Amino acid sequence: MNDQDTTAWLDQIAWNAQGLAPVITQAADTKRVLTLAWMNRESLAATVASGYATYWSRSRSKLWRKGETSGNLQRIVSIALDCDADALLLQVEQMGGVACHTGRESCFYRVLDKGTWQADEPVITDPEQMYGKS
Amino acid sequence: MNDQDTTAWLDQIAWNAQGLAPVITQAADTKRVLTLAWMNRESLAATVASGYATYWSRSRSKLWRKGETSGNLQRIVSIALDCDADALLLQVEQMGGVACHTGRESCFYRVLDKGTWQADEPVITDPEQMYGKS
Repeated sequence: MNDQDTTAWLDQIAWNAQGLAPVITQAADTKRVLTLAWMNRESLAATVASGYATYWSRSRSKLWRKGETSGNLQRIVSIALDCDADALLLQVEQMGGVACHTGRESCFYRVLDKGTWQADEPVITDPEQMYGKS
Repeated sequence: MNDQDTTAWLDQIAWNAQGLAPVITQAADTKRVLTLAWMNRESLAATVASGYATYWSRSRSKLWRKGETSGNLQRIVSIALDCDADALLLQVEQMGGVACHTGRESCFYRVLDKGTWQADEPVITDPEQMYGKS
């Protein structure tokens, strides 16, 4: 992959005032939408260079290689850009089948049902097991 | 649907400093991710009340019922909230099979290929036909 040789493709993204773009991540096999996260130029370049999803953590203000603690890395299958160039869509292979820190496949596990948000998806991996105890 | 009777479910969303949340919209049948747009409280309440996706247009600063001009409305199948309550995922029935103003099914029609963004999806409906001429 020579994507990192030039930066024109990075310049074509309409980064917001904070230098970020929202990133939708979808399981390439099941097509389940897993997460909505954020990237800056550096994290997208790192994603392409490594072949694994690397986001920008807004809460910790640092690069965040998804799964670096849990082992649930996301291998990149494809990266798409939307029509106004301000949002990205990743297709990934989700290691461990779990993207959410709650141990579920997807972060979008609560569905609106008669005026309340109802969890409708099982916990696959115990979060304590996922992150261990130090 | 009695979702609009109380506002507790709206209060549970972690709206950003501008009162907005990013919204991923996915075709319920094909699972194709169609758009990344934004909602505020009013637009989400209008979406639930009407059963059709209504976003907040950041460029026009107004409610925007998707498809109001083109006829390509999005009928709501389900609405999900993510683990940190700051992003939404809609499953919709996309009228006309076209979500993008370019006449394509999805706005995410450009894929990164060897360092360039390549359009990899056909135009289904001519945009001039979609929006007409006044």
